Amino acid sequence: MRWYVVASLLTVLTSSQGILTTLSQSNGGYKYDYATVPFLAEVFKLIVSSVFLWREMQNSPPPKMTMDWKSVRLYPIPSIIYLIHNNVQFTTLTYVDTSTYQIMGNLKIVTTGILFRLFLKRKLTNLQWLAIVLLAVGTTTSQVKGCGEASCDSFFSSPIQGYLFGVLSACLSALAGVYTEFLMKKNNDSLYWQNVQLYTFGSIFNMGRLLMDDFRSGFEAGPWWQRLFNGYNMTTWLVVLNLGTTGLLVSWLMKYADNIIKVYATSMAMLLTMVLSVLLFNFKPTVQLFLGIIICMMSLHMYFAPPSTLVDLPLTVKPVSESVSEVSVERRTDS
Amino acid sequence: MRWYVVASLLTVLTSSQGILTTLSQSNGGYKYDYATVPFLAEVFKLIVSSVFLWREMQNSPPPKMTMDWKSVRLYPIPSIIYLIHNNVQFTTLTYVDTSTYQIMGNLKIVTTGILFRLFLKRKLTNLQWLAIVLLAVGTTTSQVKGCGEASCDSFFSSPIQGYLFGVLSACLSALAGVYTEFLMKKNNDSLYWQNVQLYTFGSIFNMGRLLMDDFRSGFEAGPWWQRLFNGYNMTTWLVVLNLGTTGLLVSWLMKYADNIIKVYATSMAMLLTMVLSVLLFNFKPTVQLFLGIIICMMSLHMYFAPPSTLVDLPLTVKPVSESVSEVSVERRTDS
Repeated sequence: MRWYVVASLLTVLTSSQGILTTLSQSNGGYKYDYATVPFLAEVFKLIVSSVFLWREMQNSPPPKMTMDWKSVRLYPIPSIIYLIHNNVQFTTLTYVDTSTYQIMGNLKIVTTGILFRLFLKRKLTNLQWLAIVLLAVGTTTSQVKGCGEASCDSFFSSPIQGYLFGVLSACLSALAGVYTEFLMKKNNDSLYWQNVQLYTFGSIFNMGRLLMDDFRSGFEAGPWWQRLFNGYNMTTWLVVLNLGTTGLLVSWLMKYADNIIKVYATSMAMLLTMVLSVLLFNFKPTVQLFLGIIICMMSLHMYFAPPSTLVDLPLTVKPVSESVSEVSVERRTDS
Repeated sequence: MRWYVVASLLTVLTSSQGILTTLSQSNGGYKYDYATVPFLAEVFKLIVSSVFLWREMQNSPPPKMTMDWKSVRLYPIPSIIYLIHNNVQFTTLTYVDTSTYQIMGNLKIVTTGILFRLFLKRKLTNLQWLAIVLLAVGTTTSQVKGCGEASCDSFFSSPIQGYLFGVLSACLSALAGVYTEFLMKKNNDSLYWQNVQLYTFGSIFNMGRLLMDDFRSGFEAGPWWQRLFNGYNMTTWLVVLNLGTTGLLVSWLMKYADNIIKVYATSMAMLLTMVLSVLLFNFKPTVQLFLGIIICMMSLHMYFAPPSTLVDLPLTVKPVSESVSEVSVERRTDS
């Protein structure tokens, strides 16, 4: 498969995730425990990856699998970063309102670019840097609260801690992505073997979270394994399958493409969700959504188009040089 | 003088124009007839240009002045285009609300680029085209009505005629600029001689407008020459001087630089006015103004930076090629 096919698929599925999650609600709330969804998605990914790994092992040559503890011990790290990230997110929200939080979330596009450069030592052209900043500006533009919206939160009025935690959150989110890319690319182990390690730890950490929720609530609703599928219906299962599949696609992109491509896919998905919401849920289309889409499309073109198609000037003289050479006329008359 | 000094000066003065005009109001209205301002500015420009031309004529060699009627008759054309443009603007406003009108006004950035290419045959790189569209998107973003604003006009709900007249208006505005550039550059006549011709016709057309207003009102307030300075104060005179000076700078740019540079200067001026309004008149800063400024600055950089600084890739392999070459792993396991 080509990277852009996987990226497009990721865009469509990430976008459906938002729509499906909305559809899985009844009367504006969840009938099921939402924390069970990522756990089941991890288990789904683990099963799929195990099956593929097993099939791979029937082939010859057998897949490359590094079983060394020195290597295996790196695989829980993304889960640990996500765990810290979740807590920072929670802290951030105690300082800032949800729309400021949402807007600051776009910062992770830029921090991903920076960590991508620093940790993975991947060089980008200045134009690609401009494109990355533009992508963040574009997604932010589409989210600007419009005229006549119910709650008017002000972006500039949160305490300084809110912004600092927001930046930290963006860095952690980027770090998790960049670290995963490092992990997937550091050797040419089988993707499925790498996935099996990632998702085993992912399942354990998610289980831990469910257990912690149980302890917090004093096992009121019973232990998590007894209420795991409570309130599940067809749509909930689709949400789980969809989340699992997007996870597998991200994993593929981390190994064979990169974090920037993933960031573009998920940003485009965000815009697609907004467009679909206009069409499906009769949301009012806004000028800022329209502008955001144009900006992100331009960013996409700037980042991925071959540089020669962008700056190849077909025998032209730039106006600048003209004005400088004809300067004498003005000077003569002024003296 | 260098073009960027003139362009910066134009930015500052155009921006002051908005602030000065606001300051010249008393109790939210004008004490003077606003139509007298552009007339007096034309007269001011005519006087200044005549003085400079006279000084130039004392020098040797004397300035180049084409007096041929075939050439002179071209100079009223910009005034005629502006006259038609004013009427189209007026018609547009009968179909659309003021904020839709303002947002559509940014279209003239793009139409200027198009006519610049078509009529003046000036080639731009694809990146410069992207930059021009981005500039229009950026100025539009800064104007998006924010949450909690009094009147919520919808951009997408005007009749089709409104949008068509808006496009026509943007084309006429661009045409006036591009035609003036053609006029100023078509021969190497003295700038001041060209100005004298432009502003003579400009003064006549503005006089005609004042006279027409008089006829429309049935000479209620007396003929225009009797009420010309009614209600004028120091600030009003500054408005006139400022408008006249910006006109002279635009004229210089049309001869020694070009329309795109002018468009950048006036767009930046619009943003500067909004920033100054936040500082001077305690306007609330909005996220969209902040985003608009970033977008326009990026556009500026994309348009004017030497292409080599933007795309010079220091020995890097694009992720794309990697993913394509490593595709075999995925294929093997799927089959």
